[in-house]
Amino acid sequence: MTRAQLFEQILQKKSYLCVGLDTDPEKLPEHLLDTEDPVFEFNRQIIDATADLCVAYKPNIAFYEAQGPVGWMSLSKTLQHIPDNIFTIADAKRGDIGNTSELYARAFFDTMSFDSITVAPYMGSDSVTPFLRKEGKWVILLALTSNPGSQDFQMLPLKNGEPEYLFEQVLKTSATWATPDNMMYVVGATRADFVERVRAIVPDSFLLVPGVGAQGGSLEDISRLGMNKECGLLVNSTRAIIYASSGRDFAEKAREAALEVQQEMAQYLEKFL
Amino acid sequence: MTRAQLFEQILQKKSYLCVGLDTDPEKLPEHLLDTEDPVFEFNRQIIDATADLCVAYKPNIAFYEAQGPVGWMSLSKTLQHIPDNIFTIADAKRGDIGNTSELYARAFFDTMSFDSITVAPYMGSDSVTPFLRKEGKWVILLALTSNPGSQDFQMLPLKNGEPEYLFEQVLKTSATWATPDNMMYVVGATRADFVERVRAIVPDSFLLVPGVGAQGGSLEDISRLGMNKECGLLVNSTRAIIYASSGRDFAEKAREAALEVQQEMAQYLEKFL
Repeated sequence: MTRAQLFEQILQKKSYLCVGLDTDPEKLPEHLLDTEDPVFEFNRQIIDATADLCVAYKPNIAFYEAQGPVGWMSLSKTLQHIPDNIFTIADAKRGDIGNTSELYARAFFDTMSFDSITVAPYMGSDSVTPFLRKEGKWVILLALTSNPGSQDFQMLPLKNGEPEYLFEQVLKTSATWATPDNMMYVVGATRADFVERVRAIVPDSFLLVPGVGAQGGSLEDISRLGMNKECGLLVNSTRAIIYASSGRDFAEKAREAALEVQQEMAQYLEKFL
Repeated sequence: MTRAQLFEQILQKKSYLCVGLDTDPEKLPEHLLDTEDPVFEFNRQIIDATADLCVAYKPNIAFYEAQGPVGWMSLSKTLQHIPDNIFTIADAKRGDIGNTSELYARAFFDTMSFDSITVAPYMGSDSVTPFLRKEGKWVILLALTSNPGSQDFQMLPLKNGEPEYLFEQVLKTSATWATPDNMMYVVGATRADFVERVRAIVPDSFLLVPGVGAQGGSLEDISRLGMNKECGLLVNSTRAIIYASSGRDFAEKAREAALEVQQEMAQYLEKFL
């Protein structure tokens, strides 16, 4: 999917919501457990209930991988069920030497047909660029994550002081490998105080923003500080939506939760775009 | 496997060789292609031919993942075929927020039963510590990798200058989360000039060393500079061993290549231990 197509979806749906499909087999509603593939059945109903309210789905690959071969089948079926006009993100946080990253690109872009994959920057250029080979396929590079451990290295001050922090250097260096048409960045909503620094380096790039809701980030803050003229934001919500209810009404409650976020987003698009 | 058991194996076999099982379905000898599971059959013969000459096997997970569910079956059978007294490394380079890293730990340590997994440090403590929960299970953290892109971020000089570079801070900080009994570090042989800096920070830890052979690192240099009193090195070789021949004699030639490395290692153990 191209940047223009993504922006068009955002305008049409008045939403920049990404729904995380971190489907934990231990958290499934009981009545799904005797279906043939309970994880897929859960995802199918979540997708059907939310597809008109969100512009992206993001399965975290760990949840599927942990189930062995069965999990990969559930993931593959889930991906096929997502409508073509919705952006798909393999939240895999991969990154390895060139020929290995090439294989991961094959796994996620060819064997499966994700639009994008999250990638860790530590190994540098030749671990990232193999994912940039195809039009319409995206790298989403970890820059400033939403977890407590993001303090350990991402916020280390650098010697030359220009830029000041490691995450800023990651943005600056990686921006020379790619364009806003094939690279996005993960920037946690819990780090809204740094979003202006991010925008100073990558004004046009889309940011994938986790950490709103359960992790305490503010949707209003990140929208006000992070939105650019093509929106430039995909804000992820997982638990607040897919686990809004653990009963028979899980899909209905997921829709209600997604609708609430979408309505808030419609206001911010009005206000900040 | 404990550190003492690993060291015992090293002394017994006079070897600190790790064989990389990056088995590419496109590089298999032709006569294997009509076996039931050619990737497993290749690995099985490589393992049978080299198990007395090496102390570790390291499948790079990308090569299996790229094949979809079939690949995971090949990997699982390969792992079961590796003798119990040989250390196993899931070269997966994972790293995600806490609950997700917990799932990866489940996938690689429980669903499969690897002794260790390679982990990327960028997301910090809560992305790494979930892998440290069990005795005899190891994290192998990326510190200074062997690829050209390692220059991009790992070698960035830090503001306070103590330590000087990012990879040194990764060693220093992560050493407070773990012990030499449950954490090792990836340090590329192409970076032998920095091994003394590594040893100044983590004198007792095992280092997993890629980059000897095809990538140009010297086994003698890394052994002289990196060996500690319990050896402290696992030196990986992949292509020079598993692809020593592409014919019917691939296993025999793999053994010859492994034997040559093992004999060189026996000398260095004599000389530097």
